[in-house]
Amino acid sequence: MAKKVLKFGGTSVGSIKRILHAAKIIKKEHDNGNKLIVVVSAMAGTTNNLIEHSKGISKKFNKRELDVLLTSGEQVTSALIAGALNDLGVKSKSWLNWQIPIITEGEHSNARIIHMNIKNINDYISSGGIAVVPGFQGVSKSGDITSIGRGGSDATAVAIAKIFQTDSCEIYTDVDGVYSSDPNKIPLAKKIDKISYEEMLELSSLGAKVMQSSAVQSAMMGDIPIQVKSTFTEREGTEIINQDNIDYTKAVTGVAYSKDDAKITLLGVEDKPGVAADVFEPLSRNQINVDMVIQNISTDGKKTDITFTTKRQDSKNAISLIETNKKIKYEKMYMNDKVSKISIVGAGMVATPGITFKMFRSLADANINLLAISTSEIKISVIIDEKFTIDAVKKLHKTFKLD
Amino acid sequence: MAKKVLKFGGTSVGSIKRILHAAKIIKKEHDNGNKLIVVVSAMAGTTNNLIEHSKGISKKFNKRELDVLLTSGEQVTSALIAGALNDLGVKSKSWLNWQIPIITEGEHSNARIIHMNIKNINDYISSGGIAVVPGFQGVSKSGDITSIGRGGSDATAVAIAKIFQTDSCEIYTDVDGVYSSDPNKIPLAKKIDKISYEEMLELSSLGAKVMQSSAVQSAMMGDIPIQVKSTFTEREGTEIINQDNIDYTKAVTGVAYSKDDAKITLLGVEDKPGVAADVFEPLSRNQINVDMVIQNISTDGKKTDITFTTKRQDSKNAISLIETNKKIKYEKMYMNDKVSKISIVGAGMVATPGITFKMFRSLADANINLLAISTSEIKISVIIDEKFTIDAVKKLHKTFKLD
Repeated sequence: MAKKVLKFGGTSVGSIKRILHAAKIIKKEHDNGNKLIVVVSAMAGTTNNLIEHSKGISKKFNKRELDVLLTSGEQVTSALIAGALNDLGVKSKSWLNWQIPIITEGEHSNARIIHMNIKNINDYISSGGIAVVPGFQGVSKSGDITSIGRGGSDATAVAIAKIFQTDSCEIYTDVDGVYSSDPNKIPLAKKIDKISYEEMLELSSLGAKVMQSSAVQSAMMGDIPIQVKSTFTEREGTEIINQDNIDYTKAVTGVAYSKDDAKITLLGVEDKPGVAADVFEPLSRNQINVDMVIQNISTDGKKTDITFTTKRQDSKNAISLIETNKKIKYEKMYMNDKVSKISIVGAGMVATPGITFKMFRSLADANINLLAISTSEIKISVIIDEKFTIDAVKKLHKTFKLD
Repeated sequence: MAKKVLKFGGTSVGSIKRILHAAKIIKKEHDNGNKLIVVVSAMAGTTNNLIEHSKGISKKFNKRELDVLLTSGEQVTSALIAGALNDLGVKSKSWLNWQIPIITEGEHSNARIIHMNIKNINDYISSGGIAVVPGFQGVSKSGDITSIGRGGSDATAVAIAKIFQTDSCEIYTDVDGVYSSDPNKIPLAKKIDKISYEEMLELSSLGAKVMQSSAVQSAMMGDIPIQVKSTFTEREGTEIINQDNIDYTKAVTGVAYSKDDAKITLLGVEDKPGVAADVFEPLSRNQINVDMVIQNISTDGKKTDITFTTKRQDSKNAISLIETNKKIKYEKMYMNDKVSKISIVGAGMVATPGITFKMFRSLADANINLLAISTSEIKISVIIDEKFTIDAVKKLHKTFKLD
């Protein structure tokens, strides 16, 4: 008998049939004697529909009211799941965030959970009831509805696991775990049984859609073990846990790639304090996300080169912002918008010498040229010509024995 | 400058375009210097969709959760209206029922509003803000979400008008007022400028869809004047007010009709106490609504005849319930399921002799036979062959000079 958080994502509750299926999974956990707090997302598509509605009203829809609008989606799913459980003969009720309450602070659409009242729900689940809580939302201290950002249902689940001190936090989703790469594109990608928070964060930020990054981060900070499971198969999922609890037999855990990247290089930039800020500040102000940034040491102490990547759709805008910015002095600017980023991620990397070399050699053997390189403690990313993307990922899978 | 409740029904907020239109109406009232509390229904179709969802889960969907589910609809509209007003440069925010709060008592899906906290909203509207309140819902003393029955947004509007002591309560809807009969079917039907609560109640119960009956009833009890207006035209609407404030120049205010009726007659029923109860109790237990009931005095003191009407779809079930009920003794049962009910309604009727006779003569002149008659203080209803329905309504319009 354990106290558990079970979280069901949008596709897992995306239709009446799927809600009935999720209710059966929950009932089975309940019949096994577990005390359950269930966290649900809005039905797949609902949040986007509501956002479309708000855009139809105004391009700058009031942020307070947007939270009132969007949180209705999870309210609907909570009622349907609780209703389905009652129909299966299990005591259950929905607990909206103001009913618990879940107190947040911070601005609308980007609030943080800071407190929950645990007594009532603890009493309820101890008496055999299943509490169903809408994810993604809370109330501010002043009593306004807030939301904690898209994908925030994961964050709700982790916060509940932490504050209620549950034995586990299980994320039911439409994939059966975290893979070494996207299994739809890379058939030889393998499911990972255990992955550290840090690795998961790197993979998430590199495009693995399994769990929302800020939820992984808060799980890491609270040392909450997460289990990612499929709602639709009975296969074992992936555990996201503390690195210390993983016995690394491999240096590399996964290979991620992002497409639609563009690489911009400024040659002969003055090498003095504040130059990088001058380049990137206007981009940030214009909502252009900069991913990799590489700056080499200047050879003569006067000039340096700066390379960075952005999403392809932002590249033209980035270039014109730099061109029109009088503050930035450079000799030449190059742009290549047909590049992709390939990253190998692995907490075992630190302890295994020669990984960097092995990666570069492997790609060189496949005749793939490296256009830029950036490394962190548990990740090595390279920029290559886009057309080699899948080849590179496959090659690295073989090199690091992930297949 | 006045304090007003403006209520917008489902079709008036049935699309983004209509919400933007409603927001303009509200802004105009605000620009005229009025303090406004706006009550909104769910977007047309939303509540039915949610009910379909609940039925997909369970035929007996949990009532507490049904209220959580359905009230999401008005929450969405409240946010969209408040968002639209902000976009028009008007200070506005949504006030969900737990935020006010609106306290109810009674069972789920059929609760009654018993209390509202008025201070915060009064402060807000005095400071120039527009409060947007979702209709149809409240919270119980124990903090559960409740709903006050379908069409309950009207009741919310009336309750707010009463408790906040507003100067008016304006119901914006998809028709431009109350008509002497359904203007779509009876082109000579005329809009009524002023109608009493009692007349409106009779017309509502006879099928006029303009306003929910229990809302009219509570307006009557609180003596709250109601204005029914069209969201889509600028024509004057109908005032629903105290009978004392109406100068009756006509005895009859409107002619209502219902179709899909069935008439069942039991001949030779024992004339002793409890017989009617024996007949109707099983019908009621099986959710069969009985409309008109007519029982004549028995001629010999032993036997009597009972006639009643039900909806056509219930008639077969009603007959089999009577046939299989051993307690009911009767000689013969007749059923005619091709009948309709025609009613004339008018508070002026009481003071005008000969209305009954005039109605019967008028229908006789048109060769329409009366199959049953039932009268109340401000209404006379007759059952006729269904095929004469429209003819009868037109004829009565002319007879009572409603055209």
